[in-house]
Amino acid sequence: MSDPAERKGISRRGLIGAAGAAVATGVAGYAAHSVLAGEASQAADANGPVEFHGPHQAGIVTAVQDRLHFAAFDVTTTKRDELVALLKEWTAAAALLTAGRDIGQYGAVNGPGEAPPEDTGEAVGLPPARLTLTIGFGPSLFDKRFGLAGKRPAALVDLPHFIGDDLDPNRSGGDIAVQACSDDPQVAVHAIRNLARIGFGRVAVRYSQLGFGRTSSTSRAQTTPRNLFGFKDGTNNLKLEDADKLEQQVWVQPGDGAEWMAGGSYLVARRIRMNIEIWDRTSLGEQETIIGRGKGTGAPLGKADEFDPIDFAAKNADGEAKIPMDSHIRLAHPQFNNGAELLRRGYNFVDGSDGLGRLDAGLFFLAYQRDPRKQFIPVQTQLARTDTLNEYIHHVGSGIFACPGGVTPGSYWGEKLFA
Amino acid sequence: MSDPAERKGISRRGLIGAAGAAVATGVAGYAAHSVLAGEASQAADANGPVEFHGPHQAGIVTAVQDRLHFAAFDVTTTKRDELVALLKEWTAAAALLTAGRDIGQYGAVNGPGEAPPEDTGEAVGLPPARLTLTIGFGPSLFDKRFGLAGKRPAALVDLPHFIGDDLDPNRSGGDIAVQACSDDPQVAVHAIRNLARIGFGRVAVRYSQLGFGRTSSTSRAQTTPRNLFGFKDGTNNLKLEDADKLEQQVWVQPGDGAEWMAGGSYLVARRIRMNIEIWDRTSLGEQETIIGRGKGTGAPLGKADEFDPIDFAAKNADGEAKIPMDSHIRLAHPQFNNGAELLRRGYNFVDGSDGLGRLDAGLFFLAYQRDPRKQFIPVQTQLARTDTLNEYIHHVGSGIFACPGGVTPGSYWGEKLFA
Ligand code: HEM
Ligand code: HEM
Repeated sequence: MSDPAERKGISRRGLIGAAGAAVATGVAGYAAHSVLAGEASQAADANGPVEFHGPHQAGIVTAVQDRLHFAAFDVTTTKRDELVALLKEWTAAAALLTAGRDIGQYGAVNGPGEAPPEDTGEAVGLPPARLTLTIGFGPSLFDKRFGLAGKRPAALVDLPHFIGDDLDPNRSGGDIAVQACSDDPQVAVHAIRNLARIGFGRVAVRYSQLGFGRTSSTSRAQTTPRNLFGFKDGTNNLKLEDADKLEQQVWVQPGDGAEWMAGGSYLVARRIRMNIEIWDRTSLGEQETIIGRGKGTGAPLGKADEFDPIDFAAKNADGEAKIPMDSHIRLAHPQFNNGAELLRRGYNFVDGSDGLGRLDAGLFFLAYQRDPRKQFIPVQTQLARTDTLNEYIHHVGSGIFACPGGVTPGSYWGEKLFA
Repeated sequence: MSDPAERKGISRRGLIGAAGAAVATGVAGYAAHSVLAGEASQAADANGPVEFHGPHQAGIVTAVQDRLHFAAFDVTTTKRDELVALLKEWTAAAALLTAGRDIGQYGAVNGPGEAPPEDTGEAVGLPPARLTLTIGFGPSLFDKRFGLAGKRPAALVDLPHFIGDDLDPNRSGGDIAVQACSDDPQVAVHAIRNLARIGFGRVAVRYSQLGFGRTSSTSRAQTTPRNLFGFKDGTNNLKLEDADKLEQQVWVQPGDGAEWMAGGSYLVARRIRMNIEIWDRTSLGEQETIIGRGKGTGAPLGKADEFDPIDFAAKNADGEAKIPMDSHIRLAHPQFNNGAELLRRGYNFVDGSDGLGRLDAGLFFLAYQRDPRKQFIPVQTQLARTDTLNEYIHHVGSGIFACPGGVTPGSYWGEKLFA
């Protein structure tokens, strides 16, 4: 593994390390072009880079991209120094990858053709496609191995058992998580793969999850997408335009405890299996009652438009609440959760079928927040207890991660934690 | 399930069954728009429909789309009539889905809100996104159950065991396969899910596979994409522009046997696991030697440009063949396979990780051909025996399917088979 400072970062769309090729080649084959001809007409911006550096990590309030590759890693080295070295190399690689650059030459480093290519190559020719890479540290990283026990934030609790939890340990936990989001799955997969490869011998992938069709919008400029139950998802999400709310609800503030987390956020990841075959046999009326919104419009029941405010007091002719007492949007709403909100940026997944003829499909729920003790945990406790939606979903994987503040040029992921 | 003739087919971008909504709603929420705001700038064509009807099924020589959802079904009914009825319903639904229409109202059929929605809804607002649906019939469909034994084409052989095969029966076989390809994964998933739902009680999903980043171009208008080994894939593929070759190599001709297959094609599907972690530790020179092409350019070794003709006779200074004797492109080339060619339209897959810290990644290989006995089987026999690539891949799933000719309006998938 070469020193991260040596990683030159080759533009994927420009000239790619011809020097390292084992045979004489013209440069024509390396010229700039989009691999996906059908997407050539996309606006340059839509394929452009998202700035990696800044006060906060990208990938949290960034307008949510279309695809996800999420990986949880176990740290396999027991040496703190090696872990720090890895985080430095990862940071350097992440800065290149998110800029749409490959992480090195094709084997040019140790002589022509003799070394494995530094970059795995499958993203050559692809644009940055708004790749973001976001890191988080799980509770297990704060055990005795690396001398971090004293730095564990109080907010980074072990999540309690919620009613109905059916968690697979192989899809839960993890010392470190990296969330890769991009509008192109090949770009997201390429990023995680190259990070995993850099980490060889120091970390191992514990589980990874691909997702598509983001299930929550995080910007008012985005049309609300639909989840696999066919409902608009993200209507009442926190949006990147809500600067004040983000400070209150998403970003850890100085004085919140664990100073190294200031400017960061806590991520809760839940793999939620959706029994779509059963849902699909449920009447439209029942579906809308369960969610509390119209399926077509996405409007709160009794209202006409998606963004109409919810009127929880409104009653039908029969005196029943228009937004039923056990509907999802009532139980999850800040008004019934001490004002707690979440920034949701989950993804649909379909991982083939489950051996019983059912699609292994659902929502890979990702929610960022300032303090899970006041946000995810109470909301999910209430949902787990009362939400009618539980007849159609179950939580099968779980993770919680402390995602530090942003990276400035010259610093690295987690620098303040290890300082 | 309503009669297929009743399926009105609601334009997903137009007005959606407001009549069936359980609450009074304005129509504004149903108005035309793209859910994926970031994709709004894509050319209309790129998101447009692919014609479902025609002399051949769409999805074979159609310029390959970006995403795949492939499903193999077991037929669970034992009644021939029910199977025929299902194929009729599927055909009607497929014609709507590929036109970018949902397959029915939101629950309007049996009274407002009382019935499950006919369409599952998660594609509302999405464009057709070049969806194609292609059906094929596996050897097991021709057993005693449906009286089809006499109709089994001789070319629809049971694939032999190839050296190195490590097939999972749960990811192999299937009575019926449906290949859904689209530039939007949510559109492909929606299509398979709604077909599975229509088939409830008559078929069950045996396995399904999502794929992305098509691994072979099938048109000269497409830039060659890269597979997960980082190489351009599809350079020497059959292309839709090669009309004469398609007749010789892809389309079953009258007189080939099994007249119901005229205009059709045989599909071989192989789930090929790629050991990308091992590949990634192989030198660039070795990688290029194994494939027989340069990694950057995609050019045959010794040549400069991707589309330069391969010179199998060329020798290096040391007298060795420039394109090594055991390289993939030599062993797979028609010159060494009695002229046999394949139309490859496979997809990359990453299905999380495998519990050993490795990505469960590879190529879902799909190849269409006129006669597998002369094409896939001899080519794969040779590859399985000699290809150095075998040190880095293994075949873990397998299926073969007879895909009949195209559907004309008023006919249905497999009509000639059941005639
Ligand atoms: C598969 C599981 C889930 C599905 C299908 C689902 C679906 C939805 C839908 C359709 C909405 C309405 C649209 C919107 O405002 O975004 C919504 C809202 C919401 N959901 Fe979920 N959800 C799921 C799980 C969860 C979980 C686990 C949580 C948190 C513990 C959660 C928290 C929320 C919140 C906070 C809102 C906004 C409520 C409001 O303020 O109006 N959801 N969800
Ligand atoms: C994971 C497995 C595989 C990988 C990574 C792979 C990769 C490649 C690459 C990089 C090329 C050169 C570019 C091109 O002409 O498309 C190629 C060509 C080709 N491959 Fe594969 N391939 C795989 C499996 C197979 C299988 C199973 C078959 C058929 C049994 C096959 C048949 C062919 C053929 C016919 C060509 C074109 C050769 C020529 O005429 O030049 N490949 N493959």
